[in-house]
Amino acid sequence: MTNGRPQRIVLAHGGGGQLTDELLGDCVLPRLGNGVLNQLLDAALLPDAAGGQLAMTIDSFVVKPWEFPGGNIGHLAVAGTVNDLAVCGATPLGLALSLVLTEGWPIAALETVLDAIKEAADVAGVPVVTGDTKVVGHGHGDGIVITTAGVGRVPAGLQLGPTQVRAGDRLLINGPIGEHGLAVMLAREMPELQTPVQSDVAPLNGLIAAALVAAPGAVRFMRDPTRGGLAGLCVDLARQSGYRVVLDETQILVRPQAQHAAELLGLDPLEIANEGKVVMVVAPEAADAVIAALRAHPLGRHAAVIGTIDGARDGLCEMRTMIGGRRIVAKPYGEQLPRIC
Amino acid sequence: MTNGRPQRIVLAHGGGGQLTDELLGDCVLPRLGNGVLNQLLDAALLPDAAGGQLAMTIDSFVVKPWEFPGGNIGHLAVAGTVNDLAVCGATPLGLALSLVLTEGWPIAALETVLDAIKEAADVAGVPVVTGDTKVVGHGHGDGIVITTAGVGRVPAGLQLGPTQVRAGDRLLINGPIGEHGLAVMLAREMPELQTPVQSDVAPLNGLIAAALVAAPGAVRFMRDPTRGGLAGLCVDLARQSGYRVVLDETQILVRPQAQHAAELLGLDPLEIANEGKVVMVVAPEAADAVIAALRAHPLGRHAAVIGTIDGARDGLCEMRTMIGGRRIVAKPYGEQLPRIC
Repeated sequence: MTNGRPQRIVLAHGGGGQLTDELLGDCVLPRLGNGVLNQLLDAALLPDAAGGQLAMTIDSFVVKPWEFPGGNIGHLAVAGTVNDLAVCGATPLGLALSLVLTEGWPIAALETVLDAIKEAADVAGVPVVTGDTKVVGHGHGDGIVITTAGVGRVPAGLQLGPTQVRAGDRLLINGPIGEHGLAVMLAREMPELQTPVQSDVAPLNGLIAAALVAAPGAVRFMRDPTRGGLAGLCVDLARQSGYRVVLDETQILVRPQAQHAAELLGLDPLEIANEGKVVMVVAPEAADAVIAALRAHPLGRHAAVIGTIDGARDGLCEMRTMIGGRRIVAKPYGEQLPRIC
Repeated sequence: MTNGRPQRIVLAHGGGGQLTDELLGDCVLPRLGNGVLNQLLDAALLPDAAGGQLAMTIDSFVVKPWEFPGGNIGHLAVAGTVNDLAVCGATPLGLALSLVLTEGWPIAALETVLDAIKEAADVAGVPVVTGDTKVVGHGHGDGIVITTAGVGRVPAGLQLGPTQVRAGDRLLINGPIGEHGLAVMLAREMPELQTPVQSDVAPLNGLIAAALVAAPGAVRFMRDPTRGGLAGLCVDLARQSGYRVVLDETQILVRPQAQHAAELLGLDPLEIANEGKVVMVVAPEAADAVIAALRAHPLGRHAAVIGTIDGARDGLCEMRTMIGGRRIVAKPYGEQLPRIC
């Protein structure tokens, strides 16, 4: 340890929590930082040739096991990348797909993954336009790693981000939380268990486009609560916007089977990764219209207002609990759920 | 084996040779194929908002060892992606970088790689605009895998590709071949050997831009001879253009130390990966101007005309040998150099 920081990579460096932030802040940004990268958005925004913006994103997927109730790594690779573009307000144009396979992995498994990629890409309406394949020797890899990059176009004039948020804005989500992470954790830790918990993995570009159309100019911020869960997202939003984010626990839907699974695994659904959820901050007068648009879409039937942007400018995230209490929500350290996506 | 094809992934599936082609043709394209992907270009071309084209590319880097004479995996990840954009005539706009790290890998090693990424990105003049980090458990990975995606802009009107090639065109390369692959193979197989062979890894966007300016409209085709080497590139070019590609062995520069290393390892320099070379097909009347432009750049001092596009429309690649003979060049099967990039 140097300055209390690890000298070697640990699993939590990849967990999307505090330690990931430290790795970025200590190692990556001092070297590679620039005005675009430093924003650490889900997708980078670059000026396009016609006055709008290009969005660009990349994610590697190392989920273990590669198949889980509700999908496989192929669905995840497409949905994760499409969603990173969509939450930046971008219409996805194309996906790039890179596979790192381990010697000895069954080609039938690869075909199952490719079928899932096709299925998810068709749902999203986004083509895979380029790719790469590498193979590492037996013992040097772990079956399959997929990295997906995406580009999209953001229309001129669309302004989204934590700095657009205002006091009084409402926080919305399109459904119940925690199901992706729980489905994967159960498949990994208790493969013999029959569970009704299914991953929520889904491309959200259609749902998001419907919401943007329903209330033009009213959506201030969107992000998908993946690693770090809803807690991680809201803590980041509070810090980045400078406002207090107040969550209402009574409005945050956790299905009974998910709650049960979380208790079994000793996990907090608030910190668990989702792969088919989007959190939106919208102007208060538009909240009803956006909720109606979300609920009209198959992926938003359980959409709800789950919080507000408070006037307090302390950058904290507060939970109003079921029993009327209050607590400050902290960002997960990062090691709770390694290899969840 | 089914139909003589392997049922499991083998190293050669990632070698960029025949078996990679089979995997694409049998598994990937039947599922994901579309008008853009099927072209299998170094970068996909998508219409941009202003009448030009966007280029998009992705590559995973699994080189072993991650450091080698002349560079490390970080240089490679930037140069490989920048070069894939540049050979499509694109000006790179931004890079996306995804790291898959193995638990226990030293953070000091990561910092060395990030320094290399910074160095190469600065040489190329292209910022890293977005990224991702995942960690896999000890025993499930192999230190570091980097996936780099890039987007660039192709000016309206620029037409490049194997279908643009005409009989009589000249084939050019910017220097001696085989040095990246040999440097890596020597570092892996004979780490105790002191060798003057250094990887040629370098971003070529500056060199290529100079060549395009020197002879507007005269460059018909560009590609970088990475996996599969110059042989793989020329066999593909012949097949895709339908013309016979005739190479002149006396003009293909192999440095003595590289020739020696290739003999030591039992490899053919023609099939060995380069990471700082570009093959161009140019109109015959422009060959001198392009050669002059290449030689004026530090990365093209040894540029030479190494072949011609023959009128025969048989799609074969022929080598005119040093001793006046002729032979047909075949595409490497793919297993010669796993994990070279």
